[in-house]
Amino acid sequence: MITGKNLIGDNYSSNGTTEFKTFNPLTNEETDFVFTEVTPTEVENACNLANSAFKEFRNKSDRERSEFLFAIAEEIENLGDELLSTYVTESGLSKERAVGERGRTLFQLRSFADMLMDSNWREETIEEKNNTVFLRKKLIPLGPIVVFGASNFPLAYSTAGGDTASAFAAGCPVIVKAHPMHAGTGDLVAQAILKAAKRTNMPNGVFSNLNSKGYELGIQLVDNENIKAVGFTGSIKGGRALMDIAAAREEPIPVFAEMGSVNPVVITQQALNSKSDYWARQYAQSITLGTGQFCTSPGLILGIDSELLDSFATVLSKEIMKIESSCMLHPAIKESFSKLKKEVMEQEGVQRLTTSSSVSNNFAEQTVVMVSGKEALKNKSVQQEIFGPFTVIIKCQNEEELIAVIDQLDGQLTGTIIAEKKEFPYIQNIIDALQQRVGRLIFNGVSTGVEVCPAMHHGGPYPASSDARFTAVGLHSVRRWLRSIVFQGFPE
Amino acid sequence: MITGKNLIGDNYSSNGTTEFKTFNPLTNEETDFVFTEVTPTEVENACNLANSAFKEFRNKSDRERSEFLFAIAEEIENLGDELLSTYVTESGLSKERAVGERGRTLFQLRSFADMLMDSNWREETIEEKNNTVFLRKKLIPLGPIVVFGASNFPLAYSTAGGDTASAFAAGCPVIVKAHPMHAGTGDLVAQAILKAAKRTNMPNGVFSNLNSKGYELGIQLVDNENIKAVGFTGSIKGGRALMDIAAAREEPIPVFAEMGSVNPVVITQQALNSKSDYWARQYAQSITLGTGQFCTSPGLILGIDSELLDSFATVLSKEIMKIESSCMLHPAIKESFSKLKKEVMEQEGVQRLTTSSSVSNNFAEQTVVMVSGKEALKNKSVQQEIFGPFTVIIKCQNEEELIAVIDQLDGQLTGTIIAEKKEFPYIQNIIDALQQRVGRLIFNGVSTGVEVCPAMHHGGPYPASSDARFTAVGLHSVRRWLRSIVFQGFPE
Repeated sequence: MITGKNLIGDNYSSNGTTEFKTFNPLTNEETDFVFTEVTPTEVENACNLANSAFKEFRNKSDRERSEFLFAIAEEIENLGDELLSTYVTESGLSKERAVGERGRTLFQLRSFADMLMDSNWREETIEEKNNTVFLRKKLIPLGPIVVFGASNFPLAYSTAGGDTASAFAAGCPVIVKAHPMHAGTGDLVAQAILKAAKRTNMPNGVFSNLNSKGYELGIQLVDNENIKAVGFTGSIKGGRALMDIAAAREEPIPVFAEMGSVNPVVITQQALNSKSDYWARQYAQSITLGTGQFCTSPGLILGIDSELLDSFATVLSKEIMKIESSCMLHPAIKESFSKLKKEVMEQEGVQRLTTSSSVSNNFAEQTVVMVSGKEALKNKSVQQEIFGPFTVIIKCQNEEELIAVIDQLDGQLTGTIIAEKKEFPYIQNIIDALQQRVGRLIFNGVSTGVEVCPAMHHGGPYPASSDARFTAVGLHSVRRWLRSIVFQGFPE
Repeated sequence: MITGKNLIGDNYSSNGTTEFKTFNPLTNEETDFVFTEVTPTEVENACNLANSAFKEFRNKSDRERSEFLFAIAEEIENLGDELLSTYVTESGLSKERAVGERGRTLFQLRSFADMLMDSNWREETIEEKNNTVFLRKKLIPLGPIVVFGASNFPLAYSTAGGDTASAFAAGCPVIVKAHPMHAGTGDLVAQAILKAAKRTNMPNGVFSNLNSKGYELGIQLVDNENIKAVGFTGSIKGGRALMDIAAAREEPIPVFAEMGSVNPVVITQQALNSKSDYWARQYAQSITLGTGQFCTSPGLILGIDSELLDSFATVLSKEIMKIESSCMLHPAIKESFSKLKKEVMEQEGVQRLTTSSSVSNNFAEQTVVMVSGKEALKNKSVQQEIFGPFTVIIKCQNEEELIAVIDQLDGQLTGTIIAEKKEFPYIQNIIDALQQRVGRLIFNGVSTGVEVCPAMHHGGPYPASSDARFTAVGLHSVRRWLRSIVFQGFPE
């Protein structure tokens, strides 16, 4: 049962007078779920509670926090079909996707729970003097964290997603600003977290879940002196605004924002010569996966101007039109997709390759366009991230121009090189250049699909993320919320 | 031979028309060393060169960069007595200190050189699929780094100090803004780096050394698009200004600034009961060490109001007056010391414990004052860092008030607890509270003296440093200049 209220520590609260509903993009109607906008006083209470909970939470043993994380996973499972149907109603995504993403969310929670049972996670470093420990360095938590849920991952990167799981593992209380597009899904997950916190005897205030459609809540949270770091997944504009607020505080705090990426793909003549149609089919799938609403969705394909590239572009365009169009997360996202797509298509030298098709309401029309490297170098707007199934093919005159295009790309989450293995000695310049712009470099694959494991890195040079030195995915993401302390001369 | 010129990559350049000299604080006269202010065009050239050098430098092997670091150490040694005498002339510090600090500088350079010979430093993490490596995560350099030399460490935290050594180890070119108080020392060290770079075949632009007395150079450097991170050691005001510029860039970049700290010390009644005089003597030494010009100098001592504390304060004041007063680094530093000291002594309830003594020119009069916990809680200005031999004793009514004082302290590099071992069960609240405010917690010792080793951490919650998650000292300081990248599906 969705409460529609704000969860302030252990208490449900709805002192506000403004309400909002979520939206079902498939039916193009509002849902029945009503939420009360949180008030500034309630926000203040949540921050104070998080601060007082921190004192107790940071001194819970690793085992106790591990049990808390396991309990959250269990309670989310206990939500059963209601969670899945709410997810589907509020996102327009399929039930299969809901089940898959829930699986990933549970896996993340349990991975961090497992991590805590091996004390190596604190990265202890010891210096001895006279056969006794003189210096003992280890990681400790920063303090209360604010998490901004992602529109495109209602479970895995929202209420109990990667940011929350890693923060709890670190020993940091969490305040979630629920994503207003799937506040009902968030409401249910918040209930699961509260149950788990009570079951495992966690302090009041270790978790709060706040609802708002506006941006003022985010500003108030990031500006609150009790908040010590921020996790954000979303747009460059939103992430940068939070970075600026955090940097301007009396005590600046770190913001880890995972923002935009066009995930450039370089495809060589040799690869086009031997496997053009294969890659065209692969990329038709990758571009439309999840209606192109993944941060790793490939939005830019670079090749050398040639008949081979033209033929690849033609096949890609045909293949992509064979795929049934699908629903976007929200009318606002559909609107932004249409607007930005139109803007890019109006730029000089941009040629549309896919035919126009009629799509209903919030469905996205997948689109492939082409532009010359010369135009792309002159006009950076053709390289902007467009959230949705949209890809620009850039045909470059030669390798020099192709590398020039890479060099002036914004920072990216991923980059991909499609080439023959035997070409390796000849593409070192491309590999070296692309490496400088990305957090993950893929050889002969697609960028969509991010494995959750210690060897994964999800982040990249700005604006892909706010700080390229940290990752949003994988166990190392816990490092965002930890700092070192040294104990010198302490008895064992 | 001091050139007095700016080193722009491989070239000495002095296009500017403004000159300045350094100062000998002992003789209270300008030195004979004349430096030409760098021009904006020269700065631009240095940044462009660093950017082009980065392409080559990042692809040098670990062994090659290791040889570069060893060569820098060797060339600094080759500077011989000229370096030591210039250091002494420009800083007023002793020759023994110069020799010691040079030793530390060489040790740092060689430690990073050694680190590079063990590939573990790249923290590779691997994920296999079908018995072949699927994901390979490793650390790569961020790009050109700007280093701001410290006034109080003309060698170990300046031109070829910890920031420069760690950046070179990471694979980042370095541009040093030489500290204008010891520009001659920096000039000599820059020559040594250039020799080492040429000997080991490093690219033109891997290093530049720029001279200016003004703050405009720093702004231009941090704002230059080719610069990807900043290392700074100095005042809160200076560090924060650079943080703000870096955060406001189109592409924000990380700043690691090691700024201010008063390094609070808590001394228990039990410790005062058994070893009061011992600790009074220890702290008299620690407070005056290096004329109190260490970032770890103890500026705040907290105890419970009692005859024991009064007696400790009396002995400390007597002991500290027995120590011969010593010279500060520069008249500007002496002036600031006198001004801030006066300000604090004029605050309500602040009682001076040391007698007044006459000191010549740039010598510092060591001073101990006392204030109640109640006043300290009302008036945070008594807890500000005063660079020099000045310490405030805060006498608290009870443990509750003492913890309240700790809780509202700014972030600190270090905190110290002086107690009997048997007291451990009773001081957990103090340990827990102090832990939250510091980067290093010392038991029964003094905070001055920072061992350079992997288990050291030198940094702390803001404003002790700009980002508590990184350290300025020890091998882990290299993490400031590195980011992760994943290679997915690459052939071996």
